[in-house]
Amino acid sequence: MRTSKYLFSTLKETPNDAQVVSHQLMLRAGMIRPLASGLYDWMPTGIRVLNKVEKIIREEMNKSGAIEVRMPVTQPAELWQESGRWEQYGPELLRFKDRGERDFVLGPTNEEVITDLVRREISSYKQLPLNLYQIQIKFRDEVRPRFGMMRSREFIMKDSYSFHTDHASLQETYDLMYQTYSNIFTRLGLDFRAVQADTGAIGGSASHEFQVLAQSGEDDVVFSTESDFAANIELAEAVAVGQRAAPQKALELVDTPNAKTIASLVEQFSLPIENSVKTLIVKGANPEYPLIALIIRGDHELNELKAEKLAEVASPLEFAEEAEIKAKIGAGVGSLGPVNLNIPAIIDRSVALMSDFCAGANIDGKHYFNINWERDLALPKIADLRNVVAGDPSPDGKGSLMIKRGIEVGHIFQLGTKYSQAMNATVQGEDSRPQTMIMGCYGIGVTRVVAAAIEQHHDERGIIWPCDEIAPFKLAIVPMNMHKSESVREFAEQLYVDLQARGIEVILDDRKERPGVMFADMELIGVPHMLIIGEKNLANGEIEYKNRRNGEKQMIAKDQLAAFIASL
Amino acid sequence: MRTSKYLFSTLKETPNDAQVVSHQLMLRAGMIRPLASGLYDWMPTGIRVLNKVEKIIREEMNKSGAIEVRMPVTQPAELWQESGRWEQYGPELLRFKDRGERDFVLGPTNEEVITDLVRREISSYKQLPLNLYQIQIKFRDEVRPRFGMMRSREFIMKDSYSFHTDHASLQETYDLMYQTYSNIFTRLGLDFRAVQADTGAIGGSASHEFQVLAQSGEDDVVFSTESDFAANIELAEAVAVGQRAAPQKALELVDTPNAKTIASLVEQFSLPIENSVKTLIVKGANPEYPLIALIIRGDHELNELKAEKLAEVASPLEFAEEAEIKAKIGAGVGSLGPVNLNIPAIIDRSVALMSDFCAGANIDGKHYFNINWERDLALPKIADLRNVVAGDPSPDGKGSLMIKRGIEVGHIFQLGTKYSQAMNATVQGEDSRPQTMIMGCYGIGVTRVVAAAIEQHHDERGIIWPCDEIAPFKLAIVPMNMHKSESVREFAEQLYVDLQARGIEVILDDRKERPGVMFADMELIGVPHMLIIGEKNLANGEIEYKNRRNGEKQMIAKDQLAAFIASL
Repeated sequence: MRTSKYLFSTLKETPNDAQVVSHQLMLRAGMIRPLASGLYDWMPTGIRVLNKVEKIIREEMNKSGAIEVRMPVTQPAELWQESGRWEQYGPELLRFKDRGERDFVLGPTNEEVITDLVRREISSYKQLPLNLYQIQIKFRDEVRPRFGMMRSREFIMKDSYSFHTDHASLQETYDLMYQTYSNIFTRLGLDFRAVQADTGAIGGSASHEFQVLAQSGEDDVVFSTESDFAANIELAEAVAVGQRAAPQKALELVDTPNAKTIASLVEQFSLPIENSVKTLIVKGANPEYPLIALIIRGDHELNELKAEKLAEVASPLEFAEEAEIKAKIGAGVGSLGPVNLNIPAIIDRSVALMSDFCAGANIDGKHYFNINWERDLALPKIADLRNVVAGDPSPDGKGSLMIKRGIEVGHIFQLGTKYSQAMNATVQGEDSRPQTMIMGCYGIGVTRVVAAAIEQHHDERGIIWPCDEIAPFKLAIVPMNMHKSESVREFAEQLYVDLQARGIEVILDDRKERPGVMFADMELIGVPHMLIIGEKNLANGEIEYKNRRNGEKQMIAKDQLAAFIASL
Repeated sequence: MRTSKYLFSTLKETPNDAQVVSHQLMLRAGMIRPLASGLYDWMPTGIRVLNKVEKIIREEMNKSGAIEVRMPVTQPAELWQESGRWEQYGPELLRFKDRGERDFVLGPTNEEVITDLVRREISSYKQLPLNLYQIQIKFRDEVRPRFGMMRSREFIMKDSYSFHTDHASLQETYDLMYQTYSNIFTRLGLDFRAVQADTGAIGGSASHEFQVLAQSGEDDVVFSTESDFAANIELAEAVAVGQRAAPQKALELVDTPNAKTIASLVEQFSLPIENSVKTLIVKGANPEYPLIALIIRGDHELNELKAEKLAEVASPLEFAEEAEIKAKIGAGVGSLGPVNLNIPAIIDRSVALMSDFCAGANIDGKHYFNINWERDLALPKIADLRNVVAGDPSPDGKGSLMIKRGIEVGHIFQLGTKYSQAMNATVQGEDSRPQTMIMGCYGIGVTRVVAAAIEQHHDERGIIWPCDEIAPFKLAIVPMNMHKSESVREFAEQLYVDLQARGIEVILDDRKERPGVMFADMELIGVPHMLIIGEKNLANGEIEYKNRRNGEKQMIAKDQLAAFIASL
């Protein structure tokens, strides 16, 4: 490709409305342009990358034995009514009527359509397992589309759906998809973690997210320093190790009129925050106990998902109103604690190991200091209630935990029979009786992968593609003063022709621009390898090479050039 | 691929509701399945073909220098309002509102979005010409979706749009696209014609359709036996050759009470139909002449497009009501003719060459026989009014015309400034003043190409792909009784592994089916090459080969097999 014949469209300035790096750089590099809120035109440089990411995903999916299909973007409402999601799905599901006033949706996901397809095509257990995938446009009418390709309304997903007669078979395909996704993200050169995840609204049992680690991620990913343990922070188990120390001091009731929060309490009394606890009051599941106290260490955060899974706690989790608390316990939220508490309490594992700690006294403006379990009060029910923090022991016993921000680029689920049951998708089982199929589903946000790669791999000059295979071009030829120097022009043109003949994706910058502009543009779009053709160097029989990833430069002898390029 | 791990889904019976061959065979071969009216799931065998067709189109477009982009399927209404098509387009344009009550459409075509993109990106004549293409889903809410992939609602198009500052540049890109389309359809192995076409509703000047010749086509394509002249019948010029013979007989007024049509007239009086004329009354363009008579030979058909382009005739063409005719001329439609006619007449070129012909007398139940121009009445205005018929001389003077049915798979247009003017898409011209860009647009119906290939290439056993490159698999291995014969199983499995390693797309039929079922399925889906592994042949050191296209069989010696396959 020649820049002069290409729609290059780089921008020097960062657009004001782009908040995250990938959005900024995709705009600046001329990869995308906004068409409407959450809708983007993919520009030439962008579509080259997107096509390559798609190709890698397709190749690895095919290698796994998954079979490609393609379902329409427009889906009839009947199937969504059958699964129950026509009612359950909120306004993210874009609904419309066709000219015959029939209801349709723009597919945000494809469980219904694929389940319908398979129930019509597959009649016997002998035809299973089956894993069907597509790479297709999806639409989610996000309330607040943002961050460019990270959360757009129209996007591309690779989604696959597997069908089984038993859980062992589902587990086998699930494991294969886990491995395939690992292969895909490894091949893309991404630093990622496959983390245990909540199955959420889509239903089902086991689930893993594939998270690309990057500052701008919306999720907290927890992983071990020493093992391959990894989980979304929502799910990571907080382990408490060690023994509770023996009581050292006597229980003391202290006036704390100005300590409404843990932070002010520990500051005023110079207490270590690890010696304090927070008491949070939530609604109970059992009408007999409408309020439940959840107690965690002062420096910890409640994990709402863990709390909500407790039998005693109402789901979804709901915090009690201040007035309700006051009426029942007789003290405000700043003065609550386990001593003399008149509602059931559940304490975090780490709280059970504390001694000589302080907490609210359930009297406004007072705290107890030096509380000790089994001396001052009985030990309540113990549970895992908190988010892990960096340095916590890994729940698999190997190493300690680190926490990083992650961008979810893939998600695999064991769906079970959620859709197949609702839609009556059965096969004849080995015993000749109808059997509901068991399903798995597996998604990759293809357009989001492009953004995540940029979030993780960039510098102040622009994009650094994590692997040559997805760069828009592998190599740039930047001739200096080509329009004045005949020797430069001739060499650059010949090199361009030769490299194209060798099947190398090369871009020749033949614009009448200053060398600085050309370098900046090639670095901005992230071409991994650059050959700089200068008159003086040429006369010395040399070409300058610059590597985008490490910034290293070297001079290559003209007669070594072919071999050098082959080695890249 | 192994059939046992594949979603094969062939059908023995032809589905009742499929009227055309491609629809029947795509269903029977398991290429597509209906999801809703005009919406289809692409099944594994279908998507393999579709991906390959896309790949060929992409490669040839890239070769031409066109640059790939991708625009969203959902398009904001504002752009359609700006071009005026929001009002002009009928219910085929699917409109919907997003959650914020903003208007959108599902894109049936992309002139608006691309014009908007280019006006934002391109500022100078120096950046032109530019030819941008995409391969993307389109949606047209057809009133009567039918014929499977021939007229579906959701389909895939390759659409491209070129931008220029002068017509010479547009013509250059137009010619290049003409050649590129010819290359694409040639590479696909299709028998096609590039025909002159009407520019229709989309506007613009020059236009060619690419028509795949097939019985089931919806268009009539006219082409010369001796030259490359080809045109849609709407546009093909009807040339009249020869001289008018001198009058032989006297004008005669004949009672014809039972001759209400040309057919009954020529039958009752044993006249050659070529010696009769039909007089059709249409609305005039000029209020002074509200009715105009169009006169063509009895065996010819009026070409409405040609008629409507005449200055005297109202556009769009409208036939006069019977009552209106009676009131003005004094006779019914079965008795009209040029003699004593009180409205202006325009006669077809071929009518001007007639002598001693018959026509209605403008008196109910009477005809004139032996009418002669310039003896019985003056020669009216002469024009090209009729559809050509097979055997007519080619308008380029070379050979005569043939007519075949065609399926439109591509269309190229010189749009001019229709969209760029409405949307104010200008660049700074060479003279520094703003200049409206000139546009071309070029489409290929990608999904329709698959159907057209089948319409043109099939037999009673199924699909015959016109080139190996788009067949779902290149080669089938059909082992006979593989599950009983160890030697067959071993050879087939080894051959399968070897061919895969050589990068050949092979399908191994490892189902427990009778050989007849396997042969039928492989022929139905159109695998071009089949290797049949039988125990007895193997013992003789031979493999049977069968070619899908010509049905020829031959025995290949085991040690020649690798070389034979390489030669395919």
